[in-house]
Amino acid sequence: MEEEIRKEFMELIRLLDEGKIPEFKEKAALCPPVDIAEGLEEITDEGRVLRIFRMLPKDISSDVFSYMTSEQQQLIAESATNAELRELVDDMFLDDTVDFLEEMPANVVKKVLQNTDENTRKTINQFLNYPENSAGSLMTIEYVDLHDYFTVRKAMDYIRRTGIDKETVYTCYVIDDQRKLVGQVSLRKLIIAPESTYIRDIMETNIVSASTTDDQEAVADDFRRYDLTSIAVCDKENRLVGIITIDDIVDVIQDENTEDIKKMAAIIPSDEDYLKASALSLVAHRLPWLLLLMISATFTSTIISHFEALLSGAVVLTAFIPMLMDSAGNSGSQTSVTVIRNMALGEIELRDWLRVLFKEVRVAIISGLALAAVNFLRMILFSSVSVLIAATVSVTLFCTVIIAMIVGCLLPMGAKRIGFDPAVMASPMITTIVDACSLLVYFMIASALLGL
Amino acid sequence: MEEEIRKEFMELIRLLDEGKIPEFKEKAALCPPVDIAEGLEEITDEGRVLRIFRMLPKDISSDVFSYMTSEQQQLIAESATNAELRELVDDMFLDDTVDFLEEMPANVVKKVLQNTDENTRKTINQFLNYPENSAGSLMTIEYVDLHDYFTVRKAMDYIRRTGIDKETVYTCYVIDDQRKLVGQVSLRKLIIAPESTYIRDIMETNIVSASTTDDQEAVADDFRRYDLTSIAVCDKENRLVGIITIDDIVDVIQDENTEDIKKMAAIIPSDEDYLKASALSLVAHRLPWLLLLMISATFTSTIISHFEALLSGAVVLTAFIPMLMDSAGNSGSQTSVTVIRNMALGEIELRDWLRVLFKEVRVAIISGLALAAVNFLRMILFSSVSVLIAATVSVTLFCTVIIAMIVGCLLPMGAKRIGFDPAVMASPMITTIVDACSLLVYFMIASALLGL
Repeated sequence: MEEEIRKEFMELIRLLDEGKIPEFKEKAALCPPVDIAEGLEEITDEGRVLRIFRMLPKDISSDVFSYMTSEQQQLIAESATNAELRELVDDMFLDDTVDFLEEMPANVVKKVLQNTDENTRKTINQFLNYPENSAGSLMTIEYVDLHDYFTVRKAMDYIRRTGIDKETVYTCYVIDDQRKLVGQVSLRKLIIAPESTYIRDIMETNIVSASTTDDQEAVADDFRRYDLTSIAVCDKENRLVGIITIDDIVDVIQDENTEDIKKMAAIIPSDEDYLKASALSLVAHRLPWLLLLMISATFTSTIISHFEALLSGAVVLTAFIPMLMDSAGNSGSQTSVTVIRNMALGEIELRDWLRVLFKEVRVAIISGLALAAVNFLRMILFSSVSVLIAATVSVTLFCTVIIAMIVGCLLPMGAKRIGFDPAVMASPMITTIVDACSLLVYFMIASALLGL
Repeated sequence: MEEEIRKEFMELIRLLDEGKIPEFKEKAALCPPVDIAEGLEEITDEGRVLRIFRMLPKDISSDVFSYMTSEQQQLIAESATNAELRELVDDMFLDDTVDFLEEMPANVVKKVLQNTDENTRKTINQFLNYPENSAGSLMTIEYVDLHDYFTVRKAMDYIRRTGIDKETVYTCYVIDDQRKLVGQVSLRKLIIAPESTYIRDIMETNIVSASTTDDQEAVADDFRRYDLTSIAVCDKENRLVGIITIDDIVDVIQDENTEDIKKMAAIIPSDEDYLKASALSLVAHRLPWLLLLMISATFTSTIISHFEALLSGAVVLTAFIPMLMDSAGNSGSQTSVTVIRNMALGEIELRDWLRVLFKEVRVAIISGLALAAVNFLRMILFSSVSVLIAATVSVTLFCTVIIAMIVGCLLPMGAKRIGFDPAVMASPMITTIVDACSLLVYFMIASALLGL
């Protein structure tokens, strides 16, 4: 939370503490709900949170509520009267209600559902059943639906009458009598068109829409590609059942990026807030990968043990193992992360694999030559090893950089090819594989060059 | 490019090839401009690209143009007549024109500027001078500006008359006679309000705005935080000079994520498309880090050389160096990437450093114990080493995991504290530092336990 926002919140609370209720309400009404929710988050006294929340102006309290932490939402839901709860849920957008209920224990969900009318209850239950990360779980029902036989005048009247409760009125969706989606029309077009025009004559029919079962990442890609601010979501029969708006998509994009970054660092992704997560929960998301990678790395011990006789003959070789492994690991990571990211952005497709491989091999040859040359000079000039040792290390370096970049390029693409998540094939995985290769190459070249 | 979109584009081109011009134009007008631009990208015959572009319906050609690659934009700009160029630039949004000109050689820029009126030329020149990644370089001038003494009727008339050329009409910005920003009003509010209402009575005055010099990342954070779809950009005197819309911010968010991911993989970020970048250019963005990290890693050689006598006495110790280094590196990466990402998302602030450290130490102790225990059992049960060697390796493993997680936690936060980019302190950097620590700890524990 930024200093400036914190100070403004403190100011707000001071008004309440001094009993200046009208001033508090006036100022709170002008304050962005997300700022109030974040301010509340830092208050640990539950009674105080409840008192402040109850004093908020009615027209912002549901907005503030939807930005609050699950813990504080639960606190408020549990202590609210039935009437208060009914009002709160009535004022919230359905997608926010569903997000809230998803995190609540059974008793709170039951209490909330008992305080909604039968239709809303049915819709909420249906939404709670959409798979996580699907378009269905992300959508809301507060959209403007028009019929193609409406005139612009009738459409505008309808929007004026109901628009205040809609999540967006700027794109209106046109449906037929079976509620099937037949087109969309922007409010911009509606206000410019003559009032007697029929919607069917100005609506766009060639539109992008999503299906409830689509993955949220695919929906986000459509938003990015077509510069959308909202999208219609249809069921299997192409009936309009909801819309998704850009503000939720921005969060999806950020979450998907976080997920990819975590996977690339060998962490099992979770939605938990870092500062709120327990140490044990963090361990649960990291230890499995650490264990797996540690056990895979024992393969390197086997290789070294196998060449123990060789190493006894030239202990000096040991000194360069870490540098060789690190350089190979770093080159491999650079390549794998580049390939993974470009695949995620759709810049590289699987059918480009040969082009990518060819490019990476060229990069590897140039990088490998440069690294090997610098290393050779450094060893000759600044350390007391023989030219043969320097040559062994440098040739190994060249070879391992090439192997690392090829592995770093092919592994993520191979993972995607067989339906695995390529992000898992990033640095840690590549490093483990490349380490074993580097050692093998090192010992083979040493045997050959040094005649050991 | 997805198969389905490619097929649709091929279909479109077929119409043109068969001379069905009206059908082509009709179909092209319904096709998303970005899809046409991507289709054109795959055509290598320059004459063919020009012929197709010239046949596009006038009202979509400028949209298609702004999605095209710089190479193809240059091709079209160079072969266009002055009249064609004038029309193209007139139809484009100013932010797209600026993006296009930024990539053009001087002769094309000159040709374009010669074909714009003096006012536009001045504005373009001014926009070209905003620093890269600033709000100024991102904004456009096609916004709706209202005066606070307008009535709703007058405002709506103004929007109806000029709205077709605006990038968005859904948020209108209210200025005073000095063009200073005094508020904003949504089109939703305008259509609901009575026609005789004054704008000053319904506008919001407590609004979030940006300054031309703000970093685009900070602007994107405001969009995310406050669920904006557009933002006003003001100069130093608070005069409204432009707006930024959410579609450009979505690209910024994606670009900033890509940049962070590249930095974390020790790659110098660039805007170049991977498939179009030359191998040499890729090398230029990777080799500096590889060289730096390689040279830093020679520190590990020094440590090993120093303990050569110890190693000669127990060559078996060498076998576990890679596993120890990898495990330490992986633990360090997990922590550093977690900290870096949470700082980027604003979930961790610098003042949380003690909480973060405390959490990471607990995670490290639990993970370290688990890894050490598993490793000890594995070595005792499945390899022929003595209990003392197994103990040496396991105790080292425990210690290095703790060191790695502490380094992985403190380094990115320290970097941010002194104004460096924390993303640089990710896996490769941490690995190099942690490797040296691991080796030192290993040899010290070996000396102590084995009495070498």
